[in-house]
Amino acid sequence: MILHDFIIEEHIKNALKEDIGFGDITTDILASEDKIIKAEMNTREDGILCGIDIAALVFKILSPEIKLRKLYKDGDKISKGDTLMIIEGSSRAVLTGERTALNYIQRLSGIATETNKYQKAIGNYKARITDTRKNTPNFRLFEKYAVATGGAKLHRFNLSDCVMIKDNHIQLAGSITNAVNQIRNNLSHAHKIEVECDTFEQVKEAVNAKVDIIMLDNMPCELMKKCVEFIKNSAIIEASGNVTLETIKEIASTGVDVISSSAIVAKAKTLDIGLDI
Amino acid sequence: MILHDFIIEEHIKNALKEDIGFGDITTDILASEDKIIKAEMNTREDGILCGIDIAALVFKILSPEIKLRKLYKDGDKISKGDTLMIIEGSSRAVLTGERTALNYIQRLSGIATETNKYQKAIGNYKARITDTRKNTPNFRLFEKYAVATGGAKLHRFNLSDCVMIKDNHIQLAGSITNAVNQIRNNLSHAHKIEVECDTFEQVKEAVNAKVDIIMLDNMPCELMKKCVEFIKNSAIIEASGNVTLETIKEIASTGVDVISSSAIVAKAKTLDIGLDI
Amino acid sequence: MILHDFIIEEHIKNALKEDIGFGDITTDILASEDKIIKAEMNTREDGILCGIDIAALVFKILSPEIKLRKLYKDGDKISKGDTLMIIEGSSRAVLTGERTALNYIQRLSGIATETNKYQKAIGNYKARITDTRKNTPNFRLFEKYAVATGGAKLHRFNLSDCVMIKDNHIQLAGSITNAVNQIRNNLSHAHKIEVECDTFEQVKEAVNAKVDIIMLDNMPCELMKKCVEFIKNSAIIEASGNVTLETIKEIASTGVDVISSSAIVAKAKTLDIGLDI
Amino acid sequence: MILHDFIIEEHIKNALKEDIGFGDITTDILASEDKIIKAEMNTREDGILCGIDIAALVFKILSPEIKLRKLYKDGDKISKGDTLMIIEGSSRAVLTGERTALNYIQRLSGIATETNKYQKAIGNYKARITDTRKNTPNFRLFEKYAVATGGAKLHRFNLSDCVMIKDNHIQLAGSITNAVNQIRNNLSHAHKIEVECDTFEQVKEAVNAKVDIIMLDNMPCELMKKCVEFIKNSAIIEASGNVTLETIKEIASTGVDVISSSAIVAKAKTLDIGLDI
Amino acid sequence: MILHDFIIEEHIKNALKEDIGFGDITTDILASEDKIIKAEMNTREDGILCGIDIAALVFKILSPEIKLRKLYKDGDKISKGDTLMIIEGSSRAVLTGERTALNYIQRLSGIATETNKYQKAIGNYKARITDTRKNTPNFRLFEKYAVATGGAKLHRFNLSDCVMIKDNHIQLAGSITNAVNQIRNNLSHAHKIEVECDTFEQVKEAVNAKVDIIMLDNMPCELMKKCVEFIKNSAIIEASGNVTLETIKEIASTGVDVISSSAIVAKAKTLDIGLDI
Amino acid sequence: MILHDFIIEEHIKNALKEDIGFGDITTDILASEDKIIKAEMNTREDGILCGIDIAALVFKILSPEIKLRKLYKDGDKISKGDTLMIIEGSSRAVLTGERTALNYIQRLSGIATETNKYQKAIGNYKARITDTRKNTPNFRLFEKYAVATGGAKLHRFNLSDCVMIKDNHIQLAGSITNAVNQIRNNLSHAHKIEVECDTFEQVKEAVNAKVDIIMLDNMPCELMKKCVEFIKNSAIIEASGNVTLETIKEIASTGVDVISSSAIVAKAKTLDIGLDI
Repeated sequence: MILHDFIIEEHIKNALKEDIGFGDITTDILASEDKIIKAEMNTREDGILCGIDIAALVFKILSPEIKLRKLYKDGDKISKGDTLMIIEGSSRAVLTGERTALNYIQRLSGIATETNKYQKAIGNYKARITDTRKNTPNFRLFEKYAVATGGAKLHRFNLSDCVMIKDNHIQLAGSITNAVNQIRNNLSHAHKIEVECDTFEQVKEAVNAKVDIIMLDNMPCELMKKCVEFIKNSAIIEASGNVTLETIKEIASTGVDVISSSAIVAKAKTLDIGLDI
Repeated sequence: MILHDFIIEEHIKNALKEDIGFGDITTDILASEDKIIKAEMNTREDGILCGIDIAALVFKILSPEIKLRKLYKDGDKISKGDTLMIIEGSSRAVLTGERTALNYIQRLSGIATETNKYQKAIGNYKARITDTRKNTPNFRLFEKYAVATGGAKLHRFNLSDCVMIKDNHIQLAGSITNAVNQIRNNLSHAHKIEVECDTFEQVKEAVNAKVDIIMLDNMPCELMKKCVEFIKNSAIIEASGNVTLETIKEIASTGVDVISSSAIVAKAKTLDIGLDI
Repeated sequence: MILHDFIIEEHIKNALKEDIGFGDITTDILASEDKIIKAEMNTREDGILCGIDIAALVFKILSPEIKLRKLYKDGDKISKGDTLMIIEGSSRAVLTGERTALNYIQRLSGIATETNKYQKAIGNYKARITDTRKNTPNFRLFEKYAVATGGAKLHRFNLSDCVMIKDNHIQLAGSITNAVNQIRNNLSHAHKIEVECDTFEQVKEAVNAKVDIIMLDNMPCELMKKCVEFIKNSAIIEASGNVTLETIKEIASTGVDVISSSAIVAKAKTLDIGLDI
Repeated sequence: MILHDFIIEEHIKNALKEDIGFGDITTDILASEDKIIKAEMNTREDGILCGIDIAALVFKILSPEIKLRKLYKDGDKISKGDTLMIIEGSSRAVLTGERTALNYIQRLSGIATETNKYQKAIGNYKARITDTRKNTPNFRLFEKYAVATGGAKLHRFNLSDCVMIKDNHIQLAGSITNAVNQIRNNLSHAHKIEVECDTFEQVKEAVNAKVDIIMLDNMPCELMKKCVEFIKNSAIIEASGNVTLETIKEIASTGVDVISSSAIVAKAKTLDIGLDI
Repeated sequence: MILHDFIIEEHIKNALKEDIGFGDITTDILASEDKIIKAEMNTREDGILCGIDIAALVFKILSPEIKLRKLYKDGDKISKGDTLMIIEGSSRAVLTGERTALNYIQRLSGIATETNKYQKAIGNYKARITDTRKNTPNFRLFEKYAVATGGAKLHRFNLSDCVMIKDNHIQLAGSITNAVNQIRNNLSHAHKIEVECDTFEQVKEAVNAKVDIIMLDNMPCELMKKCVEFIKNSAIIEASGNVTLETIKEIASTGVDVISSSAIVAKAKTLDIGLDI
Repeated sequence: MILHDFIIEEHIKNALKEDIGFGDITTDILASEDKIIKAEMNTREDGILCGIDIAALVFKILSPEIKLRKLYKDGDKISKGDTLMIIEGSSRAVLTGERTALNYIQRLSGIATETNKYQKAIGNYKARITDTRKNTPNFRLFEKYAVATGGAKLHRFNLSDCVMIKDNHIQLAGSITNAVNQIRNNLSHAHKIEVECDTFEQVKEAVNAKVDIIMLDNMPCELMKKCVEFIKNSAIIEASGNVTLETIKEIASTGVDVISSSAIVAKAKTLDIGLDI
């Protein structure tokens, strides 16, 4: 996944404005634009790096002349003590931008690191971890990027790029079959249809309706295995519910294609990265 | 802390646009605007509620005619199984708005709940937990609100409402005394000065410089106690560093006034709240 | 397809600002806010109506108290002389809003009408007309809506909701097979893959690569027929190129599923709709 | 007419965001930023070029390092097969930006080409074709620019730069004379007054009221000629209504100064311009 | 001149956000939303009222339920001690909105009052005071409105609604005649041409070039009178330069049509209006 | 105080758009982009310079290649006739940007100059002039910057960075003591508390409540002196009300720390600065 500079620039400028307000009243007085300093961005924890270009852009926006040397790139494994980037430039830009730059890189590296743990826990099974739409409002582009950086497959971006028929939709339509028929008559040919199934009966109905993706929602592993055998290659199979670092391998062993979990974003902790001058 | 509707409305609309894109291609077909449904927002975990009015506003924006009955208010203790709000209105609005509404309330309640645990862990000591500027970019207003809802004192909002002299600033100025003098000659009379101190020597210098707040950064509790006794009433005392649910009570026992921690935001997990129709 | 009020409101307000500038210097002087007038929106041409709610919203934004009675709804067939909406309210709002309201409804009805002609020209063949990404910049949401209102299937909304491998992509990847393999390793499971094919050989390669949609680009009908027979049910088949009201039926007769054409948007003329007081 | 880069940049960025969404999922995988390609923008139809700098800016925004060599400039006559611009740079920028760049240049060149046909059809008469306010909402600046590029005189930009008294205004004021008097007492001295006239009687009243511009609305050519002779040099004379490529020369022969028509924008087709790699 | 609510709403919301920041930390604690208070907006100085509807909108945005009774309207003469508006509603909205509401009404009433003094100083001469483009950046719409409210004629709104040929333009073109000719070949027929003249020779050239408006720039009154006699009815005559309350009557006595001055905006003082509870 | 380029850029671009509208119809025709001219920005009045970098940025935005040589910097004393900046570049950029650049620098230099007069009038007393929140809506950042440039201490930026308990708040809380107690229980430890006092009794209550700043509101100098002696070092003392160039020295002689006045912004006149080519 790619983040175009011209797209994220506005987000970063707003984040800087949120933090600067009417001015950095400490740094504006104590640091001058002329005084050049050298700083290192170091990691104080092991993990997967995500957001190095974003952090760099924070400083570039504050001072276009600043010199930035990146020693790692997004997706790299980093270890406690590693220097990620060397920054040389106006003391004012460095000190005023520090917190905003770190807020991006700490949070995104945290998500990438957590995602990576889930993917690794799957071992040699073919399944891939995937995310959900449980994001921080107005921060999804960044969180999707971190999830992809961590090694996950992405799920749909939002409500307009893939149909997802959930229990509430099924209730409104009367049945899975009805819902899929209504959808198919109106839907673009360019989008897939996914159905959330709680029972084996629903899975059978979904297979008959020839949907593209079947989500096995909160099923015990035994039942999942039975469903996987029934579905075979007639649809992509997604497992969901109760996904933890402890359970994910067993879920993967049922033969599902993707395992979706909100935990890789919603429960991820920030990675401890700091700036040393 | 108060969130004015006219201020957060734009954030919510953008979050809805982020999720809706070119349309909710599932719901737009299966749910009609006329079909009225009734839904309950229920909590599946114990915690402190935060974001009920924001969640309500999400649905109001999608359908101004929707009926919303709130059974709890922000700051309330809620228990697994509690119904927080009853929603009655257009099935389309309910289904399209669900995820965005939950994304706000789950995240904010998670932060309020975590904050509250830290404040409770302090017990009867006078100290109050307080937050930092380690926020999700462009989401600070909401995270500050959740922290306040959870029972914390807020720290400064951004770089322009309180001076905070950190080690890097001290290095640039030569000494704490120099830094405070430079600041005082230029600073508004309406803002406070805080200094970050690592050693007892620095604390003494800060007291002499008559700063408003002294932060004891990453000190062992013994040393903190010594500093607290020295400072007494001549400045507000803030402890920082290594604050966990296990350590916070001992830190509070040193007599400090506030204990700042990024963990209440950065390490908080979302609270499990769902919508049932 | 649904247009949420809160989403299009900003577009409409900007369009009004574009037209009002520093004020409607004619109407502001000659019409008063108090003087109530009654106006009819009438069509002067036959066609398919599209944009009646948008036009209504234009007047509502200028005067929340205005009374609007809609006699037709989007998608309705309308005939020269039909009254579409009766407007009663402040003369100032009616006169200042007239042009902007008409600019939306004329253009969108023109597109819906053109689209409808193409769909009708297909006759009883199963094929559906579909649009492309050749839109007026920053007006796609509205043009997609008009196309859907006219009876078309929509194609992908933008570059992020469906993979489309074009000749330039094939060149970069070396072959269709290579391209599909690279995509599949990285792509979300929630998105489809479409390949643009110029020759029968390419079609065979695409079928082998198990893509979801095969576009037959600018092929003579004979060749298309041969491809359709070969592909059968293994992919959705899209025809593209040289689609006119004269050729579309023959293209449909080849058995393709969808026929994409930029003409329904790019070559559509505005429908003549006016306001009479 | 001049389009400042800093003004159109925001429009272009929004158009790119509209098309890119969460990422160009085809190109992001298949094309790398490092892989340099060379592409030509070629026209596949004869016409008047408009939008070459806008198309160039699209690519510059995606990749500031891209090399662009323009072989024609806006307003130039171009013929089928002509290469308009040579682009050399990141394959990712070229492929992701292609559609947006073409959407601008195709539409604007289409309008410039149509406008030019109308102007040419006038032959040696002094009359100039001019546009109206019938524009695509929020795209007027670009459409006005294309109209000017095609050789037309521009009409007023919006409701605030010239008074236009229409039939509805006359009705509200009681008479042309009343309307003009009211306007004159309140109007800035820097703006002109135009009146729309349907009859010779109205033209006489308008001349007496000393308005700056008289519009002869939907009059037969005989009547127009009579009005032109009566008005002579006492006002600028604008003809409007039933303006087609067939009728325009006869209208011009009546001696009017300008002939306004929405057709040059509203009925213009896109010009076929493509990108070849 | 009319200010549409939907246009100024965004400006007001931004002004409130500028003042509220992360919250009104005084009022949010001391005033509750439920506590209803009654406040009067009173003037402490004589003048011309301007901005009463804007001030009202400030409070409406903070609290849609607030009750507002306006006792005067824009353009009214108000005297020290007059109550302009009675406000009854949430104490929080009243106290938080007070400063922003007053900032608009004080500044705009100040401008209207100053403008009115200039217009009155002209006495019975036909001349009208008019403004210039010397405005506070991004506040022109409001300042133009205040100037109109104070009884002035408005000058052009910006660079696109009237041609103004200044000395620098004349230099570039070689002469007034050249400049006017170049302009006329390219200019819309809907816009006027004004020329700035410093000498009688220039005035003669401008009259020959048949421009619409001649500005007599910084001329002594004797010379102005001579120019006015020469120009007569062949152009509108504008006087500019050294316009003060002392000089304006003599300038008007020369027979000019309008007298432009930046002083009515740039040198106006705020009018003292306050809120009493 | 520092204005970051990336923060003010958007304000400047909007100001240019406000002035340019659909184009500078005079300059676009008469001046070419290629024609290079040289212009000087000269002051026609003595004063304190403020806004030179902003004015420079105006031209840079219109023409990134323009050459700008600044001869003075913000805060410098400038005298009638001084050349402030030499501009060499595209005649189009210079002429189109002139008014916007001057609108910033004239207004801000006017405020800096006025502020400086007030500070100088204080003579050798320790008091510093300070501003208020009486600003032009959405222009506060710039006006605060001008005030600081003129030599003043700044007061709070907005409602969220310092508590200010006014008479209305006191009424709601019952007493100063109640108000301060309520505030203290809820307020961030990072913000100060100021109380507005009208009487000696109130001052005593405020001192007992240990507030950070006491404002003596509209007191006669005798009473102020008495209050100052009573308060001594227990709070910062701010005088407010009836502050003029005539009265300020006597107010300062009472021993207060800061003297706040809205006059330095609200009553400041623009400084006459022009562009000569």
